Amino acid sequence: MPRIVDHAERRTQIVHALWLVIAQQGIEGVSLRHVAAAAGVSTGRIQHYFGTKEALVLAGCTALVDSAYGGYLETEQAPPRERLLHVVSQQIPRDDAGRAGVSVWYAYVARSINDDAVRQVLAEARRGAEDECARLIRAAGAGSAPPGTAGDPALVQARRLLALADGLTLRVLVGDLDPAEATAMLADEVRAS
Amino acid sequence: MPRIVDHAERRTQIVHALWLVIAQQGIEGVSLRHVAAAAGVSTGRIQHYFGTKEALVLAGCTALVDSAYGGYLETEQAPPRERLLHVVSQQIPRDDAGRAGVSVWYAYVARSINDDAVRQVLAEARRGAEDECARLIRAAGAGSAPPGTAGDPALVQARRLLALADGLTLRVLVGDLDPAEATAMLADEVRAS
Repeated sequence: MPRIVDHAERRTQIVHALWLVIAQQGIEGVSLRHVAAAAGVSTGRIQHYFGTKEALVLAGCTALVDSAYGGYLETEQAPPRERLLHVVSQQIPRDDAGRAGVSVWYAYVARSINDDAVRQVLAEARRGAEDECARLIRAAGAGSAPPGTAGDPALVQARRLLALADGLTLRVLVGDLDPAEATAMLADEVRAS
Repeated sequence: MPRIVDHAERRTQIVHALWLVIAQQGIEGVSLRHVAAAAGVSTGRIQHYFGTKEALVLAGCTALVDSAYGGYLETEQAPPRERLLHVVSQQIPRDDAGRAGVSVWYAYVARSINDDAVRQVLAEARRGAEDECARLIRAAGAGSAPPGTAGDPALVQARRLLALADGLTLRVLVGDLDPAEATAMLADEVRAS
């Protein structure tokens, strides 16, 4: 009896192989041949699911964003402040796999300067996260901002928390800040917000 | 009469060409041939000044850090809080050249996962900037931290400001935050610190 083909699973398998290639060789090192070898499938199958190399690279960026969002949805039952801490601290790399994941994300960030489609995916993801964090801050009945700051306090605080998280992630990635220190700092900020 | 060779100038010219190649093709796209073409010199001359491709890539990373530090030294006469704002806001990209520069920096960040020498240069640069910011915060007679935060308040605040700056830089780079908004937010934080 032929195995029932799970298209979503096959796509995921190829995207994971793509991330592996990006982590090791950068986005410029991506070729259908490399990804096919890493996934253990034919280049024809990759083309069947994703079309061109460019479309595959873009799908990998969208999948990165979707994967973070999926993790967030699992926190639905938690109180707002706990969900907020999840959003801002989930990207802090805690092991080699986390570091590889974040380096793929930075590879896309670097790429965004020459690739409008990638830039748009990253920009929308960041803006979506900001809106969601602002919503959580309001739900927690919080939203303080430094004196003299203009704008919606919850949105300003959301922007501040996310920027802080991105900056601390970078520090942990280059290895001069401990993941536990970064997470503790974010927890302090979430508690104070 | 032969032109007197300015070695520093030649090295700088090659490093600028390297940055251009990285901005356009990523670090994995760097070859001595590409950099030579971009600099308008022979590959032999690049090898004369830098040795291998790997040594050139690392020199480009160190030069990036040195260039930021050079800009900082020029603010020596300014009051501490103004210098602090310079350190944290100088990397916010304000034009295409700034965006290209920051994307080169992110290319090195992504690279750091597979390159210990690059990671060490970036880590030392970040730690150096943190120490200098903490010094400026103390000199300004400031250094507040959110209630319940552990550690040296000036160092905690320095870490917070730099992480915030890195996170806002990323937002401006992907184009969903205005450089003026990012700088205003940093100015608010420096004022409140």
